[in-house]
Amino acid sequence: MSYELRSARFLAAEVLERTIQPGDTVVDATLGNGHDTCMLARLVGEQGRVIGFDIQPDAVASARERLAREGLLERCELHVLGHEHMPEIVPGPVRTVTFNLGWLPGGDKSITTHWETTHQAIEAALRLLEPMGVCTICAYPGHAAGDEERVELIRYLSGLRPQEYNVLHQRFLNAGSGAPECFVIQKQR
Amino acid sequence: MSYELRSARFLAAEVLERTIQPGDTVVDATLGNGHDTCMLARLVGEQGRVIGFDIQPDAVASARERLAREGLLERCELHVLGHEHMPEIVPGPVRTVTFNLGWLPGGDKSITTHWETTHQAIEAALRLLEPMGVCTICAYPGHAAGDEERVELIRYLSGLRPQEYNVLHQRFLNAGSGAPECFVIQKQR
Repeated sequence: MSYELRSARFLAAEVLERTIQPGDTVVDATLGNGHDTCMLARLVGEQGRVIGFDIQPDAVASARERLAREGLLERCELHVLGHEHMPEIVPGPVRTVTFNLGWLPGGDKSITTHWETTHQAIEAALRLLEPMGVCTICAYPGHAAGDEERVELIRYLSGLRPQEYNVLHQRFLNAGSGAPECFVIQKQR
Repeated sequence: MSYELRSARFLAAEVLERTIQPGDTVVDATLGNGHDTCMLARLVGEQGRVIGFDIQPDAVASARERLAREGLLERCELHVLGHEHMPEIVPGPVRTVTFNLGWLPGGDKSITTHWETTHQAIEAALRLLEPMGVCTICAYPGHAAGDEERVELIRYLSGLRPQEYNVLHQRFLNAGSGAPECFVIQKQR
């Protein structure tokens, strides 16, 4: 397939496709409507495991339904729980952790991720990564809370020790200030 | 091969590998020591063409030697000429144009690219791209002229019409302020 530059979400998906191997355990830190969860479940295969979190029961129900429809539910474990609780639930190192910040598509726009809990969840995620494991974060600065979250995210990620993590920031320069951005953090060997 | 996040130069090389097809015509706007030129010459294959520019005779000689050693010189056309002269030399649409800004590795550090001519060359390059063609630019903000060039570059690329070009900026957040950055500009269909 020929190269096509697409949105932040596709950049994250490409990295996940290249990183995840059949049999892996991965985390979906923001289930949303389960779209990414399905992709992750396919990539880990029958022997793999996806552990998912979302604080909204509607999101988890919607993700569960989608996974069931695609025959992927058995390899997934879904929690109605804020992603900052990741360390209490995830038993050991994982290959990838995926974040889609912001609100649930089609859901209540007053319910959005916030830096305080996002920060805790990302710290936990980075600790949980196995060597060469990857955390992808899509940020949506198109609303005030999202823009604040993005600024804090950049500040936090810029301070990570390069001996421990490699951090790539990808943004579309001419797509308007609210365009989604993609962050990729890889744990060093 | 498993995914590994590496430097700006590797990000550009990955995009070029995914974009260039055998038989393509491509431009190396900054020959340097010919390292990228060899990669481009391999990707275009025997039927393809690489048109290269460098203002420094030493750079062109060094690139020519490397290409000859690798048996790739026949498919290349090298010009001792500033890349702003691209429109006078390149006959028609090209699949990719590659820029490595800054100075020649191992060469005279007082000779570096400057925004005035870089700007002209990038404008020419974008016009020369065929639809879905790609321009990659690696910028090296580790010295004063390089940092200025990077700032101007971001300003210029941010103003490109999204109906005409899609512009991705990739930077490593925790690698220090002088870390190389990679820009990818794709012409729309």
